[in-house]
Amino acid sequence: MNELPERLVPESPEATLRPGSLGAEAWLYRPIKCLDHGFVYLVDYMGNDDAIVQAARVSYGKGTKKVSEDTGLIRYLRRHMHTTPSEMVEFKFHCKMPIFVARQWIRHRTASVNEYSGRYSEMSNEFYIPEKAVLAKQAKSNRQGRGESLTAEQQERVLALLKEDYDRGHGHYREFIDDIDLARELARIGLSVANYTEWYWKIDLHNLLHFLRLRLDAHAQYEIRVFGEAIARIVKDAVPISFKAFEDYQLHAMQFSRLEAEFISTHSFPMDPAAAEKEILEAFKNKRETQEFVEKLKKLNLLIA
Amino acid sequence: MNELPERLVPESPEATLRPGSLGAEAWLYRPIKCLDHGFVYLVDYMGNDDAIVQAARVSYGKGTKKVSEDTGLIRYLRRHMHTTPSEMVEFKFHCKMPIFVARQWIRHRTASVNEYSGRYSEMSNEFYIPEKAVLAKQAKSNRQGRGESLTAEQQERVLALLKEDYDRGHGHYREFIDDIDLARELARIGLSVANYTEWYWKIDLHNLLHFLRLRLDAHAQYEIRVFGEAIARIVKDAVPISFKAFEDYQLHAMQFSRLEAEFISTHSFPMDPAAAEKEILEAFKNKRETQEFVEKLKKLNLLIA
Amino acid sequence: MNELPERLVPESPEATLRPGSLGAEAWLYRPIKCLDHGFVYLVDYMGNDDAIVQAARVSYGKGTKKVSEDTGLIRYLRRHMHTTPSEMVEFKFHCKMPIFVARQWIRHRTASVNEYSGRYSEMSNEFYIPEKAVLAKQAKSNRQGRGESLTAEQQERVLALLKEDYDRGHGHYREFIDDIDLARELARIGLSVANYTEWYWKIDLHNLLHFLRLRLDAHAQYEIRVFGEAIARIVKDAVPISFKAFEDYQLHAMQFSRLEAEFISTHSFPMDPAAAEKEILEAFKNKRETQEFVEKLKKLNLLIA
Amino acid sequence: MNELPERLVPESPEATLRPGSLGAEAWLYRPIKCLDHGFVYLVDYMGNDDAIVQAARVSYGKGTKKVSEDTGLIRYLRRHMHTTPSEMVEFKFHCKMPIFVARQWIRHRTASVNEYSGRYSEMSNEFYIPEKAVLAKQAKSNRQGRGESLTAEQQERVLALLKEDYDRGHGHYREFIDDIDLARELARIGLSVANYTEWYWKIDLHNLLHFLRLRLDAHAQYEIRVFGEAIARIVKDAVPISFKAFEDYQLHAMQFSRLEAEFISTHSFPMDPAAAEKEILEAFKNKRETQEFVEKLKKLNLLIA
Repeated sequence: MNELPERLVPESPEATLRPGSLGAEAWLYRPIKCLDHGFVYLVDYMGNDDAIVQAARVSYGKGTKKVSEDTGLIRYLRRHMHTTPSEMVEFKFHCKMPIFVARQWIRHRTASVNEYSGRYSEMSNEFYIPEKAVLAKQAKSNRQGRGESLTAEQQERVLALLKEDYDRGHGHYREFIDDIDLARELARIGLSVANYTEWYWKIDLHNLLHFLRLRLDAHAQYEIRVFGEAIARIVKDAVPISFKAFEDYQLHAMQFSRLEAEFISTHSFPMDPAAAEKEILEAFKNKRETQEFVEKLKKLNLLIA
Repeated sequence: MNELPERLVPESPEATLRPGSLGAEAWLYRPIKCLDHGFVYLVDYMGNDDAIVQAARVSYGKGTKKVSEDTGLIRYLRRHMHTTPSEMVEFKFHCKMPIFVARQWIRHRTASVNEYSGRYSEMSNEFYIPEKAVLAKQAKSNRQGRGESLTAEQQERVLALLKEDYDRGHGHYREFIDDIDLARELARIGLSVANYTEWYWKIDLHNLLHFLRLRLDAHAQYEIRVFGEAIARIVKDAVPISFKAFEDYQLHAMQFSRLEAEFISTHSFPMDPAAAEKEILEAFKNKRETQEFVEKLKKLNLLIA
Repeated sequence: MNELPERLVPESPEATLRPGSLGAEAWLYRPIKCLDHGFVYLVDYMGNDDAIVQAARVSYGKGTKKVSEDTGLIRYLRRHMHTTPSEMVEFKFHCKMPIFVARQWIRHRTASVNEYSGRYSEMSNEFYIPEKAVLAKQAKSNRQGRGESLTAEQQERVLALLKEDYDRGHGHYREFIDDIDLARELARIGLSVANYTEWYWKIDLHNLLHFLRLRLDAHAQYEIRVFGEAIARIVKDAVPISFKAFEDYQLHAMQFSRLEAEFISTHSFPMDPAAAEKEILEAFKNKRETQEFVEKLKKLNLLIA
Repeated sequence: MNELPERLVPESPEATLRPGSLGAEAWLYRPIKCLDHGFVYLVDYMGNDDAIVQAARVSYGKGTKKVSEDTGLIRYLRRHMHTTPSEMVEFKFHCKMPIFVARQWIRHRTASVNEYSGRYSEMSNEFYIPEKAVLAKQAKSNRQGRGESLTAEQQERVLALLKEDYDRGHGHYREFIDDIDLARELARIGLSVANYTEWYWKIDLHNLLHFLRLRLDAHAQYEIRVFGEAIARIVKDAVPISFKAFEDYQLHAMQFSRLEAEFISTHSFPMDPAAAEKEILEAFKNKRETQEFVEKLKKLNLLIA
């Protein structure tokens, strides 16, 4: 199992005829620490913003143009969800994360993965211990999120019990391996899902942005969001025009359903919040959806403050 | 979390114009127990052996023919790895398995999965306890397998430690949930990878057979092989002609590399085992590959007994 | 090559324990004519609206509930793009279409296809002749669409030339096959992309709705939109709740970019159209995006009429 | 539409920290002519043979080793079909080919494609004219292949008719575009499937080798095989160890079914050909399979010459 490495700069750059990205080069082999023992770093990449323009222009039978037109094209493509050209850019990362994070991560199927094997090699003594600040009660409003903070005493208690589990579990693992010579594939089954694993992960830009949209979301579990944010820093530098377009047209976009659009088109704004809520509920007949729409109207300053 | 259910027969069959499979119907909602708390059962399916013929014949512009010709076509398609027609058949299973098994399983990407969520719901108190007979030492010859048995005392020791881990882990989990109201997504991080999870899993026949080829293999971890065998029983009844062809041309097929084929074509058989091994090693310059080839020659009775 | 078939009802329904959909049953083997020689019909399906609820609830550890709650869940899932449960439903179609339509269609990669083979079988004498009403000039505003109508004379001319191409091409094909016995895989290379082909196409509901979102769009080429509309009719009856949710939250949804949302939140509405356009252009510095935003504001009645 | 370009060397190499492949660098932007107007050239790549070792070793928690061990590992992985590490290497090609070739090519779904658009841009006047030597009659033994040659007169006749189709079709196309201003998406429907199109195509090594296995096969249509062979030349230089392993263990491997293996293990060799054929037919009850097995035995010199 790999420790958080220093930046491992290869002895010297190589000459290549391949198009590069200065932003990506600066991130190669330069780990970003994530959680207590985890990391993410860029191992390799292919392509840059120009590669997207180049692929899109094949469909148009033309070469590259001025920077302003290229930027416009990239933004146009993303605005209208013409995403195939962004599949032409690839990123390869080396990542280390707790098993429960890896389990959420791997649900993204359109990526290539080579994971550390607990059948072939020994599992490390690294387990995720949350920082006190991120320990929180079950959210009331959201069945899968966190709500108010724990008391200091509760925080201590949680961490103490977790450490006890980890220590005991790892102690037993070592006894299985060292004393009994139990097959590794069996010895590891008592270890917790907080145990760290690691993998090589390769994915194209289109699918990576989809991953980021889900994993940067406030509803994603904090522990995977940390990895999403680390990756976003790298991607933002590697393909700055594409990433900006992604932020503008997807990450920070706002969507209105048919009913919501109809409601707006048949009312005058700004509306009184209480009146709006009442009318929306009547139209939508769904509390949750009403709540969601009221939130959007607030953000747009279409309700009287 | 679902217990091993009795067969849950829907009140009464429905009439359908869809083609069915008697073999598949008999397995619907009929769980096969796997390991101590796991199960697999068929939830739904689409298509049968005929559906493969029908799809293949479109490419040929013809309808179905005699049974013998249909069987011949299915076998021909598989023998020559024309696998697209077998994508036309689908199976949907409900499966319950330990997390470490689920982690191996999900590496098969061309399937659809909906898994029980430990963020949304509470994890059960079910953890995999191996039967004594399957506890074994690390294999000497194979870095990722099992070798000789443990002593009775060692078996007791392993099971005692595992149970201790599970009980303590689950006790802490309950304290997190019941006393501290810790967010479920955090409370579960101390639970072991032997904890059971469950999912709906939908996959087409082509990809399912690929799954089975890997997971029925003697090198697959025993705990996932058990699930592979349960699924194989169902598939064998659902599409008997295709499954037989799969056994004949893939599962029990034997492959010879270019070097192996050249060796055979330039020697007379049967050969003396020692002479064969020596000559092969000289030709291959690779111990492991030599070993593998000698094994194959033995199976074919091409070495003097 | 298959003619547009009458509804081919199997002799009698079969009994099955599988869940069915009355809406889907009614469409089985019942072709919808598309263009002059094409068709689409439903060959088989798996699952229904309930299957989505069932798969989603596994993640939640619960069974099915009341209809109103099920509907609410399906709509919630789609509103928030939790699309994996809708992968649990499958449709299989037999489709016949011109080659240039097939070429656009097959860009949707997450589907299974078995196509009629021009290497193995003879190509038919069926070529797409557009109706006069759909012949149109190149669009001025849109590089890949149609604009104003042709004159009656131009219509005649276009159809006459196309027919000449088809007849001559097919005549040569027959000579290649019948007189020269040229290999079929070569004989067909002079045939036009208007020649009809056919295939079996199997796809899950999630990917099918993505297909429909692109192919029902006004910017899709008319000739593939016709097929999209035929398929939409079938899907709407097969999974009515899911299809309604798709219409409400995707097909007829409206999206605002970060800049657009910011513009709305910092202005009072309704605005004067000219003033709005001027201000938006200043903020966006992009003519096309300004145009697109003005269109949206009009639809929402946020500009003074 | 792009003409066969000279090698377009970028003005000067750039420095990169990315691992490169000298073999791949030499092929960048260097087109290989395919058929009369087509080409393939390497636009970009990611990774090399080492990248496969590196990804595989993560699962083993170790770094790179000696060259001989690395070669052994790559060969071991391929021999046992552990193909995920080879997904870590990517190739991006610019290809130009007749539409009927593109239609076979695109059946490989796990690749990214951006194709020239006949809706957006004008189609060229380039159509595939076969060389006389490749014109052949329909094969007798194989429903989808070529057999004996045509007479010189027949060759002339075929080429004359094809040219007539192409010229007339293109002439009409120009009239549609230039005189009638017919929408491009309609104007092209009379053009033949021999018309050239082009695309950017990006694929990982694992899927590329699968493509090559099918498209280098003697049963692949000659016109796509030409492209397969061009790509194979490039890949062979880019990842020489992997390509050699692919040739040894897949391309030139020989497979025996269960029945074939049983037959070998229960007979003494060499056998008399006639006796062998008779016995095999009795055992297999399938003429075609018998023929295939006899061919293999001949290749292995297990039949008396």
